Amino acid sequence: MNTFGKKLTLSTFGESHGKALGCILDGVPAGLTIDETFIQAELDRRKPGKSKLETGRKEEDIFEILSGTFEGLSTGAPIAMIIYNANQKSKDYDNIKNLFRPGHADFTYFHKYGLRDYRGGGRSSARETAARVAAGAIAKLMLQTLGISIQSGVCEIDGIQGKIHDFEYAKTSKMYALDPECEAQQEAAILAAKEKHDSVGGVVLTTATGVPVGLGEPLYYKLDAVLASAMMGINAAKAVEIGEGIASTRLKGSQNNDAIHKEGFSSNHAGGILGGISNGDTIVVKTHFKPTPSIFQEQHTLNTEGEELEFSLKGRHDPCVALRGSVVCEAMMALTLADMTLLNMGKKIAHLKNIYKG
Amino acid sequence: MNTFGKKLTLSTFGESHGKALGCILDGVPAGLTIDETFIQAELDRRKPGKSKLETGRKEEDIFEILSGTFEGLSTGAPIAMIIYNANQKSKDYDNIKNLFRPGHADFTYFHKYGLRDYRGGGRSSARETAARVAAGAIAKLMLQTLGISIQSGVCEIDGIQGKIHDFEYAKTSKMYALDPECEAQQEAAILAAKEKHDSVGGVVLTTATGVPVGLGEPLYYKLDAVLASAMMGINAAKAVEIGEGIASTRLKGSQNNDAIHKEGFSSNHAGGILGGISNGDTIVVKTHFKPTPSIFQEQHTLNTEGEELEFSLKGRHDPCVALRGSVVCEAMMALTLADMTLLNMGKKIAHLKNIYKG
Amino acid sequence: MNTFGKKLTLSTFGESHGKALGCILDGVPAGLTIDETFIQAELDRRKPGKSKLETGRKEEDIFEILSGTFEGLSTGAPIAMIIYNANQKSKDYDNIKNLFRPGHADFTYFHKYGLRDYRGGGRSSARETAARVAAGAIAKLMLQTLGISIQSGVCEIDGIQGKIHDFEYAKTSKMYALDPECEAQQEAAILAAKEKHDSVGGVVLTTATGVPVGLGEPLYYKLDAVLASAMMGINAAKAVEIGEGIASTRLKGSQNNDAIHKEGFSSNHAGGILGGISNGDTIVVKTHFKPTPSIFQEQHTLNTEGEELEFSLKGRHDPCVALRGSVVCEAMMALTLADMTLLNMGKKIAHLKNIYKG
Amino acid sequence: MNTFGKKLTLSTFGESHGKALGCILDGVPAGLTIDETFIQAELDRRKPGKSKLETGRKEEDIFEILSGTFEGLSTGAPIAMIIYNANQKSKDYDNIKNLFRPGHADFTYFHKYGLRDYRGGGRSSARETAARVAAGAIAKLMLQTLGISIQSGVCEIDGIQGKIHDFEYAKTSKMYALDPECEAQQEAAILAAKEKHDSVGGVVLTTATGVPVGLGEPLYYKLDAVLASAMMGINAAKAVEIGEGIASTRLKGSQNNDAIHKEGFSSNHAGGILGGISNGDTIVVKTHFKPTPSIFQEQHTLNTEGEELEFSLKGRHDPCVALRGSVVCEAMMALTLADMTLLNMGKKIAHLKNIYKG
Repeated sequence: MNTFGKKLTLSTFGESHGKALGCILDGVPAGLTIDETFIQAELDRRKPGKSKLETGRKEEDIFEILSGTFEGLSTGAPIAMIIYNANQKSKDYDNIKNLFRPGHADFTYFHKYGLRDYRGGGRSSARETAARVAAGAIAKLMLQTLGISIQSGVCEIDGIQGKIHDFEYAKTSKMYALDPECEAQQEAAILAAKEKHDSVGGVVLTTATGVPVGLGEPLYYKLDAVLASAMMGINAAKAVEIGEGIASTRLKGSQNNDAIHKEGFSSNHAGGILGGISNGDTIVVKTHFKPTPSIFQEQHTLNTEGEELEFSLKGRHDPCVALRGSVVCEAMMALTLADMTLLNMGKKIAHLKNIYKG
Repeated sequence: MNTFGKKLTLSTFGESHGKALGCILDGVPAGLTIDETFIQAELDRRKPGKSKLETGRKEEDIFEILSGTFEGLSTGAPIAMIIYNANQKSKDYDNIKNLFRPGHADFTYFHKYGLRDYRGGGRSSARETAARVAAGAIAKLMLQTLGISIQSGVCEIDGIQGKIHDFEYAKTSKMYALDPECEAQQEAAILAAKEKHDSVGGVVLTTATGVPVGLGEPLYYKLDAVLASAMMGINAAKAVEIGEGIASTRLKGSQNNDAIHKEGFSSNHAGGILGGISNGDTIVVKTHFKPTPSIFQEQHTLNTEGEELEFSLKGRHDPCVALRGSVVCEAMMALTLADMTLLNMGKKIAHLKNIYKG
Repeated sequence: MNTFGKKLTLSTFGESHGKALGCILDGVPAGLTIDETFIQAELDRRKPGKSKLETGRKEEDIFEILSGTFEGLSTGAPIAMIIYNANQKSKDYDNIKNLFRPGHADFTYFHKYGLRDYRGGGRSSARETAARVAAGAIAKLMLQTLGISIQSGVCEIDGIQGKIHDFEYAKTSKMYALDPECEAQQEAAILAAKEKHDSVGGVVLTTATGVPVGLGEPLYYKLDAVLASAMMGINAAKAVEIGEGIASTRLKGSQNNDAIHKEGFSSNHAGGILGGISNGDTIVVKTHFKPTPSIFQEQHTLNTEGEELEFSLKGRHDPCVALRGSVVCEAMMALTLADMTLLNMGKKIAHLKNIYKG
Repeated sequence: MNTFGKKLTLSTFGESHGKALGCILDGVPAGLTIDETFIQAELDRRKPGKSKLETGRKEEDIFEILSGTFEGLSTGAPIAMIIYNANQKSKDYDNIKNLFRPGHADFTYFHKYGLRDYRGGGRSSARETAARVAAGAIAKLMLQTLGISIQSGVCEIDGIQGKIHDFEYAKTSKMYALDPECEAQQEAAILAAKEKHDSVGGVVLTTATGVPVGLGEPLYYKLDAVLASAMMGINAAKAVEIGEGIASTRLKGSQNNDAIHKEGFSSNHAGGILGGISNGDTIVVKTHFKPTPSIFQEQHTLNTEGEELEFSLKGRHDPCVALRGSVVCEAMMALTLADMTLLNMGKKIAHLKNIYKG
């Protein structure tokens, strides 16, 4: 239940304010060069506290590989990675230990498990996504050997929709913005909300290029279904679209079908997926994030004794989780595609001969 | 890969024009009354050919239970069900056997597997969803014992959005419409497209009421993530929203958070799910279906030899798959919730004592 | 829980006296020639009633493929197979419907599930193994393309141990005997027990040759561990040995280690498996079957009301389940190796390039 | 593939001479008191270097919980545990880095993965079993709440078979011996082999008492099949018997069947399992360990270049792995039963009402 994937499996552990968080990534093929600098760089992209658009919690998120590599290569054994928590301020949470923050998992964890680790959201904290990013970085290294690359960026904030999708620009933008032209307006919306002790939502676009035809396992492990699950499972995600997504429901079939030519598809309404299987075109996924539930305005709620009360949250929170969410979306895309790449092997009888007779 | 669920598992088999389709539903608790009339009634709701809004293929979809029940009760053994295909017209597909229909799985199946069963889409046909509906009916019977009920209906067709969500009305509507006031307009849109040999998209709203707090297994089998996967995996689905969905990204946190009161939540932007776990409120999911790719206008494509050509499809197809898709959405919701109900057992140590000491 | 394997998965359904039994075999690579004559021949080897050494129940065990093949080839879709029960005599079981046969699953099924299908043992009947044999036949066809072949035979009956392991002879022996020299004595032991309304145990030797180095997934899906599970899960199995097995515990390390030479291992105490991974030598497994619990002598037991009583079983039963068990052992070996063959793909990074760049 | 169990899942990581080894135990019910002193005591029972019967490698095996507990209780989140390696002497392995030790996993790992971590056997080292013991300790704590307890001990060494099974004595014996009367003789056999730079095999008996009727999931996750897999998967195991095991094959059905009385079974040939489900009697499993392949005599082998050579192993090894193996058998029994306990919940429809309506 804390494991993602079928052949490349990511199992994570750790709470926001526990000793450490980390993961086991199992199924990485042996012989892959594990570039630790790249993994750390990916973690750095996600780490909090880089700008005033993010939570004030400063975590260096230094990771360490504990197993599964030898002399710089993956060995085929499970790769365990650990990130010790450094900048914890559990006291920030003393005032909420007996109440349920609206929009949070507090209420449901408490009732499901009969208790909860209230420090920073415990297991439900988005801090766990650091483990996803570390594992996703290894998945990216694996996909790179096949020429697959993954990009993402923020395409909408607080209803302000970008028109340009410049993934190179997003890499340099402190808010991961895809559209340089409306970045300033989007940033202003975040800061305006922050000033009012409020928060805003946003939308992340994630794509993968160089994906071969054939990834995705019908009928209950389709590529689009798994991507939907991967993205919806990220904290605060509330909707996922593939390709044209919702807009496709307003097109006619004759408009939405992508005609097929020798050189490829004439359009990509499908978002690179037909029948749950990649068609060789760019994979396109949009993930919609609700506004951060952690706001500092006064809110109405219940405590664990069942009494109603008003409270104001303290602590350090991102005013817009969609921003750093874009790095997590990339990781989930990478993990999904890497898993699918492995699962697809053996789908034709010719594959067996390739491996065992070659 | 053809199995859905973890503790209640549905494995399906069968192709559109093969001998039969069916499923094994494993994990049904023993002692459940298996009401075969109800299962048939559910299949009847999904079966094709009931109106001119649907494909002309007439299938009675008579199911038979092969195993797993005894004297009217489930025994705890796997329940196999079979539906023999009756009204096949494989010849309809002779003209497409060597080409790839745009918007279909033809292209990807052929390249993934090196061959394909071209008759009616083979395994990729929505005909397979009959097995889901039969299994979903048993899941519903199981959920009923806990007071959980599931509803669905069509809330939008070709961009024409209903405002009323009347699930009782949808049960009687031949197009599963939720809003009686715009049903006629929606129907007209479908028929207009049909007349032009075209197709339209639509949106299905699915809800579950009576769901206890605590269903959903964080972090990689969250209720919302699994619902997203379940719905996105239905043929032609291109987007899934939970609760307020995309609209929530345009709200402030102070607007989107659902305040908690003794009697429940003051609103349900969350769609009944917080942190991937049900919060006791109504579960709300929207599934967006693209227009049927099977249109009868001339289209441009490739054949299996790699040559470009124009072709016009023959055969019998739904002009709007979203309609019957609503019955499938219900089934997937039921299967998901029934699985989650079983998975949640044992999450508290007290559960063990309840079962083994009681 | 009714599924065996991870990438090639067998899910079975059906009870001894239900309508039908069958299976879904999922994960078969596309493009494999499905030789239905061979599958039927394998079922014929297992089918009951061929000699007086077996149960008097005569079942032709005619199977039918329902899905997953097209024009004689596997398509990559799940292959469903069905065998309708023909020669049922449920009335034979009326006298035991309220009591628990010693040595049977009656007692445990009743208490686990709160009810049971008492007709012929219901789901716990060895009749289910027909589905394994049908699926195992397809696994064998798949393995044949890689030059892997599987043999089995009975090496011991009622303590009478054969010394010769002649797998060719076993194919012609009505009791699957490996040693022609003690076959007569072994047969006599079975018939003597049968005459006394009693039963005997036996041991099956199963081997696989042509297995490449590298099959088996450490550490919790090792080849030997999965074979142990596969064999121990067959009805009436009580022990499993790999290679030298128990005898190895009485050797010194210097005797038991298999020295490695250019041309291979100098001995095969390991049974072809080191560290849970095949080493290229012959895989050797012994499966030990208890005497059939279904005997016709008077026995002491309880009924479902908790009262003690004496009873004598009626019906038709094998006096020695080990005999036909040998066919099932082959099937389980084939399914295990076929699964491992698929799982092993992608263990080296070079595999990916082979498949995706070749 | 590095994960054991279905609802209570153990995923381990780490190599013999890597930085650390550890595990994630997922699925522990919330609210269980996690007694860390007990876990350390279990690790102490397994740790090496306690007597001259064991390897000279001294490891304190101090474990640390990284996640999943809060204020002394399990929270329902995955419990990660880590043990840092302290007493590594990787140089011991420099002389074997290019050759394959007979009887070891060297050969198969190298060929499966194309490379290997040769230091101390890397991932294939029995050192990994420390993680199993830590997790098994938590499983034991969970089982204790239901009154289930697990015992083990060594019943045979080098063919010297004990007659008495005194589990209390085994706890105090430095060689985990069950029979005080032949312990000295068994010890002498080990030391004699050690002096000759050789090794011996042994047999471990493991039992569980207090097990309720109903654990085990037919047909492909039967209790006996899973125990067989769990035990066979331990390093150096070559055979597994349930209950009477091999001896039962030499009994008649009338002798082997356990008659059922009001107060229980009159005998326990079944080893507490019928039809793959626990019957309420003591679970009895025997695990047979080959002699340690790591011997210091000269041996013949190949190197990675394919040349034949003679070599003598250096380093520190147990002359009889069965001894400490007994602690691992207990852990695997505990993990299996705890998993089965959770899986069994929801097998009767009444269970659902117990949990959700109570």
